[in-house]
Amino acid sequence: MRIALLGGTGEIGEGLALRWAYHTNHDVVIGSRDPEKAREKADEYETELASRGREVKVNGFTNEMAADRARVVVLAVPPYHVADTIDAVADGLDDDDILVTPAAGIKREDDGFHYHPPKAGSVTQLVDDAAPENVPVVGAFHNLAAGRLADLDAELDIDTLLVADDYDAKDIVARLAEDIDGLRALDAGGVANAAEVESVTPLLINVAQNNEGMHDLGVQFR
Amino acid sequence: MRIALLGGTGEIGEGLALRWAYHTNHDVVIGSRDPEKAREKADEYETELASRGREVKVNGFTNEMAADRARVVVLAVPPYHVADTIDAVADGLDDDDILVTPAAGIKREDDGFHYHPPKAGSVTQLVDDAAPENVPVVGAFHNLAAGRLADLDAELDIDTLLVADDYDAKDIVARLAEDIDGLRALDAGGVANAAEVESVTPLLINVAQNNEGMHDLGVQFR
Repeated sequence: MRIALLGGTGEIGEGLALRWAYHTNHDVVIGSRDPEKAREKADEYETELASRGREVKVNGFTNEMAADRARVVVLAVPPYHVADTIDAVADGLDDDDILVTPAAGIKREDDGFHYHPPKAGSVTQLVDDAAPENVPVVGAFHNLAAGRLADLDAELDIDTLLVADDYDAKDIVARLAEDIDGLRALDAGGVANAAEVESVTPLLINVAQNNEGMHDLGVQFR
Repeated sequence: MRIALLGGTGEIGEGLALRWAYHTNHDVVIGSRDPEKAREKADEYETELASRGREVKVNGFTNEMAADRARVVVLAVPPYHVADTIDAVADGLDDDDILVTPAAGIKREDDGFHYHPPKAGSVTQLVDDAAPENVPVVGAFHNLAAGRLADLDAELDIDTLLVADDYDAKDIVARLAEDIDGLRALDAGGVANAAEVESVTPLLINVAQNNEGMHDLGVQFR
């Protein structure tokens, strides 16, 4: 399956790109507002993968071109760029495609990191509202530490939580998630349940900051 | 150490009472608005513990008497009874005591369970606001499934997150938590970080409801 990572030059995009390209045969394409940057990063990822004996092609395009070419489109951009990015790529999306949103609204305050959702109630809801009609939206990959994800030597052995109102789309993204070694996909229900999922992201940072020896945390339900 | 479980006749109170009485030498007292009910439940816990070869005394009192006798006072009551309960027991608390709050504001809606904090921002903050001055408040034990906690045959192997502004009080409660087999205490920062901790409670229910074979879930940070 072809997966586009919009904002694929950023940390979470890099991690997902490397993991899918390394562990699976899915075709990964990197999107960016700046296609030169997308190509440069795609080359970097190819070099990193080749150094581990994995010779695969990673292409870099504008976000529009990347989204147009892919079945699954991951919005690996900051929450405040989500709506703009959807607008920019909407023409290239059809009802066979799936939009995936891993962003969580987080605010750093003096006393810790706090969940700070957009007015829609969650970033996933914002994406669902902004997505073209008939294009299903899946919230996933919120609770993955970017640095750990991008380090192919780091074991995951953690869960990712999925929220979506379209069951088939959620199932496809669950399989893509579980194609990554050490990642288990769990269903957290519909888009209405996204806020509780996204709230885990600032919590992970708070726990890492307050406990010696803990960093780049993930979570496992048990 | 003597620990009072106010609302200790309810599910989460029962679980904590049994675990502390079974795994540790702490002196557990059960509080309830109805002292007869407290005594009955305390007798039940004694019988359950004796059936497992653990002969210990568990006393039952009014909430006021239980709080007055204990160093650590756990508010194992529903969120809407928290403020009333503190008012009722305030005279028996002094600055050597610690108030512990495990409650989370949860609302069951058609599409799932959602975090529904009081106006204070979190139940922990509400308790902190309502507690007598100089009595430190620790948020803990939010993310424990009551049924699993109360079943001494069930392994835990999960984490509990602590929030408090008083470092010494947090440390004492962390030790009490870790005295329970299979429970690891993690520091999630100050009371300002409580909402993200309490939000995990509805999330655990949503995950259990949407994944076959999962129930009474806990969480482990890794």
